[in-house]
Amino acid sequence: MPKTYTLGVDYGTNSVRALIVDTSNGDEIGTSVWNYETGNAGVHEDDVDVHLARQNPADYQKGFYESVRGAVEAAKKTQGFDVAQIVGIGVDTTGSTPIPVDKDGTPLALKPEFKGNLHAMAWLWKDHTGYAEAAEITEKAKAFPYLKKCGGTYSSEWFWSKILRCKRIAPDVFAAAHSWVEMQDYIPGWLVGKSNPAEVPRGICAAGHKAMYHTEWGGLPSKEFLSLLDPDLASLRDRLYDKTQTADQIAGELLPEHAEKTGLKPGIPVSVGAFDAHLGAVGSGIREGTLVKIMGTSTCDIMIGGSDTPDIPGVCGIVPGSVVPGFMGIEAGQSAVGDLFNWCVDKLGTGSHDSLSDEAQDLKPGESGLLALDWNNGNRTILVDPQLTGLIVGQTLHTTAGEIYRALIEATAFGSRKIIERIEEFGVPVQEVVVGGGIGEKSALAMQIYCDVFNRPIKISRSAQTCALGSAVMASVAAGVHGSVLDAAHKMTGYKDVVYKPNPDAVKVYDRLYKLYSSLHDSFGIAGHQEDLSRIMKDLLQIRREVVG
Amino acid sequence: MPKTYTLGVDYGTNSVRALIVDTSNGDEIGTSVWNYETGNAGVHEDDVDVHLARQNPADYQKGFYESVRGAVEAAKKTQGFDVAQIVGIGVDTTGSTPIPVDKDGTPLALKPEFKGNLHAMAWLWKDHTGYAEAAEITEKAKAFPYLKKCGGTYSSEWFWSKILRCKRIAPDVFAAAHSWVEMQDYIPGWLVGKSNPAEVPRGICAAGHKAMYHTEWGGLPSKEFLSLLDPDLASLRDRLYDKTQTADQIAGELLPEHAEKTGLKPGIPVSVGAFDAHLGAVGSGIREGTLVKIMGTSTCDIMIGGSDTPDIPGVCGIVPGSVVPGFMGIEAGQSAVGDLFNWCVDKLGTGSHDSLSDEAQDLKPGESGLLALDWNNGNRTILVDPQLTGLIVGQTLHTTAGEIYRALIEATAFGSRKIIERIEEFGVPVQEVVVGGGIGEKSALAMQIYCDVFNRPIKISRSAQTCALGSAVMASVAAGVHGSVLDAAHKMTGYKDVVYKPNPDAVKVYDRLYKLYSSLHDSFGIAGHQEDLSRIMKDLLQIRREVVG
Repeated sequence: MPKTYTLGVDYGTNSVRALIVDTSNGDEIGTSVWNYETGNAGVHEDDVDVHLARQNPADYQKGFYESVRGAVEAAKKTQGFDVAQIVGIGVDTTGSTPIPVDKDGTPLALKPEFKGNLHAMAWLWKDHTGYAEAAEITEKAKAFPYLKKCGGTYSSEWFWSKILRCKRIAPDVFAAAHSWVEMQDYIPGWLVGKSNPAEVPRGICAAGHKAMYHTEWGGLPSKEFLSLLDPDLASLRDRLYDKTQTADQIAGELLPEHAEKTGLKPGIPVSVGAFDAHLGAVGSGIREGTLVKIMGTSTCDIMIGGSDTPDIPGVCGIVPGSVVPGFMGIEAGQSAVGDLFNWCVDKLGTGSHDSLSDEAQDLKPGESGLLALDWNNGNRTILVDPQLTGLIVGQTLHTTAGEIYRALIEATAFGSRKIIERIEEFGVPVQEVVVGGGIGEKSALAMQIYCDVFNRPIKISRSAQTCALGSAVMASVAAGVHGSVLDAAHKMTGYKDVVYKPNPDAVKVYDRLYKLYSSLHDSFGIAGHQEDLSRIMKDLLQIRREVVG
Repeated sequence: MPKTYTLGVDYGTNSVRALIVDTSNGDEIGTSVWNYETGNAGVHEDDVDVHLARQNPADYQKGFYESVRGAVEAAKKTQGFDVAQIVGIGVDTTGSTPIPVDKDGTPLALKPEFKGNLHAMAWLWKDHTGYAEAAEITEKAKAFPYLKKCGGTYSSEWFWSKILRCKRIAPDVFAAAHSWVEMQDYIPGWLVGKSNPAEVPRGICAAGHKAMYHTEWGGLPSKEFLSLLDPDLASLRDRLYDKTQTADQIAGELLPEHAEKTGLKPGIPVSVGAFDAHLGAVGSGIREGTLVKIMGTSTCDIMIGGSDTPDIPGVCGIVPGSVVPGFMGIEAGQSAVGDLFNWCVDKLGTGSHDSLSDEAQDLKPGESGLLALDWNNGNRTILVDPQLTGLIVGQTLHTTAGEIYRALIEATAFGSRKIIERIEEFGVPVQEVVVGGGIGEKSALAMQIYCDVFNRPIKISRSAQTCALGSAVMASVAAGVHGSVLDAAHKMTGYKDVVYKPNPDAVKVYDRLYKLYSSLHDSFGIAGHQEDLSRIMKDLLQIRREVVG
């Protein structure tokens, strides 16, 4: 068989990366990252409303050209490589990141009349301005089946919350929007010349996980339901979509204009888009029984299950084919993980990641005497409540920045354990954990903490760019190189040699701390929950004494 | 009347300061500060046990010489001043800071065989190692009347907790200690040559507030009670004291050896010692209806009441004559105030006091979205529980160090309001608040926050050194210059021109935040208390939106 490569393009929160991969063995021969050039590292924020986070679609277009050109240039250094050997392109993006577009599919933000208008931009996944709308959708959906596939609670991070919020806060933008397109669909549509909202190839991933799309009720929620939210949403439904595809399908062929700007060959197939985490799970070699955690600024937890996978309350979505065609895709996640550690460094100014990690590394589990809730950006799973915030308890006058840093890592691990326990409670066993994304590479400290908190081994995905790799896997199937996604992933992905194993002493201490975490979690996170919290500070001191003593 | 001066010597946590004051008008003509030279800024700590805090009595002796000599030298620059015009010395110290001493009254820490032994040093007020002993004392005292004058709970900061702890943790030190002398009594005794434990002039202030001494039950607690704790404590009682004096009485005359080393005249009267905060209240011009807050690393709240002042649960002490002879002295306090702000700067490294204050100053009440508990060093009043720790809630990914700094200031203000409300609840009205100590001088930000949280005007003591000034007031009465403490204080003390007045809008926001603070306070601080805390994070976000939006 002749040598072939596919290109994966991964749109993250702050940058876009392109990766050229050998379809026979996963070798990565060319990669390039381009940081978004507008906003605060690509994110447009508001001084007053901490929930607001938007992006400029101009960054997406320029980002494709810059990153892909860079990857192609890098690949050319490989002996024998010819750009004609790139036979397909896959794309993944953050989401739910819906973009208001005009009749032609042009993002409103790119039109002169909306220049600088935050509401006309892409509503980034971590925008939580629609929290009231999310609560309203959850409430009104109770009479309908729509929430049963997405955990029972509709999130402010999702499609309809954002569109309804736009209608209320920026009716001019809403009125000017002929349709809304998820970023995951916008990029492939733009690449293949199907930007027109009626033509954009829509992926099942965003539709099923974020827009309550399911074949059981004929696609998107009914006009009857949408009109309860706003009659204009019901009208909008006609300008959205009825059909979706899995990410191993072909969206179309690369337009010559994009080929020219990047050095690719025109006409190669571009596969249907999906979310970064879902394809990151593919790039991490997902299989049944394996929880893949894609850890970055936030974390997505992905599993695949058989067709009998039940609905799981609090888990963002159970969607057929959203990860691997033929399996149910299960998505959960945490709204701030790397972002939480960055907060220590960037906002509190307590030191660098290196200095804080060094300090934290020297501490035993329980030694900090601290316990935190990891909700600085709300809670996505299992409480699904963006209006939760961070908490830290146990500080003395001796508490150091390194102790706080460690407590925040531990808090994200405890939050992650809540997700594992919830999924297992509903009959999907979690036998092992595979971590993809930057944190798995960069922080042995975090990985050991997670492993001890989970009491499960943790493997690290071999690729440093699992999302882009997952996109390349999908492209290889769309291009006909491999016959199935699991086949392709088996050939193109793998693990690093290091495997983190639980330390029994640490497991014991973390079991005790997790009980206290659960008390805080339920007390601050669940309306009506009441328990005696007066033991928490004393227990933390006691645990500290035992582990130090 | 010829010009006379008195000398006040104030022993703080990190330094000792001497102040020479004109007895006719309070003019301060000479002052000098000497920083303790051993330990961590005078405090000897332990890596493992965060509750441990000790001091080296050698610092006390050298501190007297250095600070007094400095003050005398400074005073000499005043025209017409003659050292013979200094007619008396008053002393105040931190406390409860008991020192184990031998038969002659020499601190064990000064003897070669105990060199470097932390347990042989002075057990500094903020040493909480005896928390279990405090709980035991509280429990066993229930069958006796002893706790009714000190809030119903015996504290780990106090005399008997520390001595009992010493017996258990360092029996060799306990056995070698012929007696224990409070630092407030040790200094005057040493100055006048009455170090012998049987002779040391013991002040009512430490005895009444910290050692359960009361004339109602014949002085210190009975041997019957003490033997329930440990038979050796019952034996120790014989080597302690039966009588106490108020701080306007003469302890003795200054020994020539101390006079020689400082430039003072030998033989001048030294008054009986008392605690820094109590004499700080005198130096701040205390009167009925005025709450004096002496704000430093920790804070003491002092009032005086008539002889009908009731016992008040959770308030450290109601002791006749401990502040002003003829009035009941009421003492409450917070274990960490300045220390809490220092923690931000020193341990978290988030910025300087100036930079954090500047940032915090620009925020409106409620704008940080944060709420904290001020318990990093436990809670002294009204919960009397050293095993409580800090808490902060409401963090987002946008939360800044300045916001945390402001939230900590606010937390101490809320904690202080708890004290005011408790005292008023028991029939002692708080009409105005006067602040003495460094923070009142240095932080207009903190003063305005306190004033808005209290919804009461705040005056600032005119002197920057209220404790030393209070000691000088006491010395003026002991020396016969003035006939009573209130007379002397009227002549020698005053307020600054600035008066902080409540801002009605801020008062409203703080009332709402205080309710949330109370929920956290009771939930984490009171065993058995349960309430629904799930509204707290949402309420904080809502208040933030209202004040910013």
